[in-house]
Amino acid sequence: MRVRYADTDADQVVYYGTYLTYFEVVRVEWLRALGYPITRILEQGIVLPVVEARIRYLRPARLDDLLTVRATLAAVGPASFSFDYEIEREDGLLLVTGSTRLAVCERDTARACSMPAWLRELFAALPDTVED
Amino acid sequence: MRVRYADTDADQVVYYGTYLTYFEVVRVEWLRALGYPITRILEQGIVLPVVEARIRYLRPARLDDLLTVRATLAAVGPASFSFDYEIEREDGLLLVTGSTRLAVCERDTARACSMPAWLRELFAALPDTVED
Amino acid sequence: MRVRYADTDADQVVYYGTYLTYFEVVRVEWLRALGYPITRILEQGIVLPVVEARIRYLRPARLDDLLTVRATLAAVGPASFSFDYEIEREDGLLLVTGSTRLAVCERDTARACSMPAWLRELFAALPDTVED
Amino acid sequence: MRVRYADTDADQVVYYGTYLTYFEVVRVEWLRALGYPITRILEQGIVLPVVEARIRYLRPARLDDLLTVRATLAAVGPASFSFDYEIEREDGLLLVTGSTRLAVCERDTARACSMPAWLRELFAALPDTVED
Repeated sequence: MRVRYADTDADQVVYYGTYLTYFEVVRVEWLRALGYPITRILEQGIVLPVVEARIRYLRPARLDDLLTVRATLAAVGPASFSFDYEIEREDGLLLVTGSTRLAVCERDTARACSMPAWLRELFAALPDTVED
Repeated sequence: MRVRYADTDADQVVYYGTYLTYFEVVRVEWLRALGYPITRILEQGIVLPVVEARIRYLRPARLDDLLTVRATLAAVGPASFSFDYEIEREDGLLLVTGSTRLAVCERDTARACSMPAWLRELFAALPDTVED
Repeated sequence: MRVRYADTDADQVVYYGTYLTYFEVVRVEWLRALGYPITRILEQGIVLPVVEARIRYLRPARLDDLLTVRATLAAVGPASFSFDYEIEREDGLLLVTGSTRLAVCERDTARACSMPAWLRELFAALPDTVED
Repeated sequence: MRVRYADTDADQVVYYGTYLTYFEVVRVEWLRALGYPITRILEQGIVLPVVEARIRYLRPARLDDLLTVRATLAAVGPASFSFDYEIEREDGLLLVTGSTRLAVCERDTARACSMPAWLRELFAALPDTVED
């Protein structure tokens, strides 16, 4: 993932909220790699809102840096699941770590629901790490 | 409107796309001042997508600048209307000018429709400039 | 703080990263209320990067919601300090809680430094909560 | 370019300001393809601020759409140059057209300067279209 001007701020580093967008991108690609593009999940009547996020900013990313964002499925509960993230610079330097917990909600009502079978089976399947 | 870190980029000025957000804010406040908060418009089954935008960047705004954004209703057509904008710094310096044309569309179908009577009457009413 | 279109996403709620921008705004206003606009802090050769953030998303904010964001100084250490945040909707419903830890760094080198006397005295002073 | 949640808004389409970010990305890649990553340009003491932008929104892009953004060098003046852009959806549907004019400025003073020889030679060189 290449750092854009739009991602940065007047301190000449990536804005601290932008990393949550990087997490989103790799999380969505992770689901796509398992056969579930986000639009397909929405078509199932499911949304996956983030209910908790944590980030540690170790070193700043800068304009035009080439970043590797790694997502690992960290936990699967009855109605939520969690990813851990690591963001590295091209030279291997670890910049950011974080985690998010996502709930499974009905799209129409926005209420938490239990995890549908297809999603549970999805988690039981393929490798649990994706890079982008 | 106060310039936030999130609005700026690594050149230590406001990101060029952010000004469209400033335009949005004052346009929405303009409609609210006429009695039409955006949520009320959406409840009428109408969306108002921007179909054309122009911006001239004369001088950069910077972190923590206090900006005045002025919107003027510039034209009303059968199915669209236009605003002109000016952004000034606290000291009166003109930074940015621009314009947007908005279409009137049905919310369900996203198709252009003719302007509803209540919106046409709205435009015939109150003062055409709002500052924020 | 009024929720803008730019703050929201295709799930028709505020994007999960946007809340960090809301935290930024109130944090910067908190410092301004103590006599330290962010530009004045930068002029002292100091930057205040966030080194850790946590957010809990209890309920979503939506387009045009009017939000109250409260920041409370939670801790002051030798080279960092922390804020707790609460975001409420106009009707008093608690939507989001969070916290950030900020380091004190030299602007030129971006290296952590001990907290300058003027900042320590600032924290010893006025009320520790600001709303926006 | 894949449409992210962060790019969209509560009308469930890409936010109208986001397209300027898409333009930025392809413009920066265009320069990189000519051997000038943006960081290298900055190291020459040059910044390339956008001084004018126009966009026509023909049809909305939506979450997870795969977009092709094309930039064409449209004009080169003594102290500025212009790109035209087209954004197409995966199925070839044209969604957005636009243009930006960029000035050549000294990084230290932010004042317009005449185009340096290396930049003029750059423009005389390679193909004038890049896709992303």
